[in-house]
Amino acid sequence: MPTCWLNGTFCDESTASVSIFDRGLLFGDGVYEVATVVRGRLLDADLHLARLERSLAAIRCDNPLTIAQWLETMQALVNANALDEGLVYLQVTRGVAERDFAFPTSATPTHFAFARPKRLLQDPAAAGVSVHVVPDERWARCDIKSTAMLAQVLAKQSARSAGAFEAMMHEDGVVTEGGSSNLWIVQGGTLITRPLSHDILAGITRDVVLELAAGAGIPVLERTFTVHEARTADECLMTSASSFVLPVVTIDGAPVGDGAPGTVARTLREAYIERALRLTAP
Amino acid sequence: MPTCWLNGTFCDESTASVSIFDRGLLFGDGVYEVATVVRGRLLDADLHLARLERSLAAIRCDNPLTIAQWLETMQALVNANALDEGLVYLQVTRGVAERDFAFPTSATPTHFAFARPKRLLQDPAAAGVSVHVVPDERWARCDIKSTAMLAQVLAKQSARSAGAFEAMMHEDGVVTEGGSSNLWIVQGGTLITRPLSHDILAGITRDVVLELAAGAGIPVLERTFTVHEARTADECLMTSASSFVLPVVTIDGAPVGDGAPGTVARTLREAYIERALRLTAP
Repeated sequence: MPTCWLNGTFCDESTASVSIFDRGLLFGDGVYEVATVVRGRLLDADLHLARLERSLAAIRCDNPLTIAQWLETMQALVNANALDEGLVYLQVTRGVAERDFAFPTSATPTHFAFARPKRLLQDPAAAGVSVHVVPDERWARCDIKSTAMLAQVLAKQSARSAGAFEAMMHEDGVVTEGGSSNLWIVQGGTLITRPLSHDILAGITRDVVLELAAGAGIPVLERTFTVHEARTADECLMTSASSFVLPVVTIDGAPVGDGAPGTVARTLREAYIERALRLTAP
Repeated sequence: MPTCWLNGTFCDESTASVSIFDRGLLFGDGVYEVATVVRGRLLDADLHLARLERSLAAIRCDNPLTIAQWLETMQALVNANALDEGLVYLQVTRGVAERDFAFPTSATPTHFAFARPKRLLQDPAAAGVSVHVVPDERWARCDIKSTAMLAQVLAKQSARSAGAFEAMMHEDGVVTEGGSSNLWIVQGGTLITRPLSHDILAGITRDVVLELAAGAGIPVLERTFTVHEARTADECLMTSASSFVLPVVTIDGAPVGDGAPGTVARTLREAYIERALRLTAP
């Protein structure tokens, strides 16, 4: 059984549990992060932990660990599970308290983390994935990486029911983001993605890809784009920590461009992997 | 220590816990109900359980118990805790599964319930409560009584920080509902409340109060109303299972009407209590 981390100690996952009075369970009152592990080393964990701090500040919850303690814990979890390639998930909730919507006067944040293997460098999804278009039903603060994600659960389930890999969420025909990814299109060689706001999550991978595009001489435009633009784009891409960069080759069954991974998607995925290997070099 | 119900058995609350892989904790993938207990008997539990079924159907989750089993369980919980007046809280999550947004192929819904004493008939809040106006940041399906409620947590905390009893949530100046209640105003003797839609929860108490108003000869209009209308109304009211009917006497510190509980609020609260006593008569 894998080892996880819960409130300060490592334990067997099968025994890791929280009270039914945990506010994460009663209210979705918590935030989380998912960081990548390549060659047994954490990738961009500092960026994920900086975003964790921003999410916690936004919901006015204390961070139970320092950045250094989180880094140490996450790496120990990687080692304990002999994880070579995969993900580390971590979550902080406002803790256990008598049920009441407003913040408890004294509660210790619950925090836990677990590790999972996943093929990242040789991800079969790199051959191209499908998306299914759904209305974005989320709340007004999608910049907070909260666990109150029933809207995303339903969007991703709609995608799966439609045989698609990911959801393409939109508001009145304007794309917001994927169910758990940022979305991009390519028009005439220019890479386009929605600017940051309360409407989308500030993806760590999104930030890195913006840098990599600049480095590769790919022009970038941060602006909103429509579902129609995505359908008629030369390329469509999705990015996330757990999938790096993936070409989106069909939208609701119709091919994007010629229906094969495009040059920009391939270039950025290769650049992302090259950077990942460089940063995790022994 | 009080006794609670968890996945088919009664247990001490201090030992009641769920796996960190419960989807209620990871995704807010669950729904809940809060039913009232008066004189040791459940009030309108059938209506709450019917709404539970609607919420579960909306998120496509099985109900782990039949209505009869829920009723039996809830009453047993009331008896085990010798609860005379108070609330029974119950929650269903999609269960424990390997973390993935879309529905697991096989998971048994987690379900639990607990009881709490609360003064309802002689609630000191009946003297009049205050509300604080905040933007409604919730998702697009507020008709589903989901536990993914970080928006409500933040709204109710804003209210508390402002010294108010409840939040008055609005979208572009139009009132949606309270943080955990339905809101009403009285204009020239007519009771006004927002019509049902995906934008608000179909309150059980709201339904009952509509009936009681009809019985009392109070004209009712189901239409949206603005924060401005609420500020300048003759009366403002809130309703919920855990508070019955309460007069809202100040909005952001300014008195509504003459700042004292109004006739319509008093009439409806008395009618609600009379009905509650009739339905729970030994």
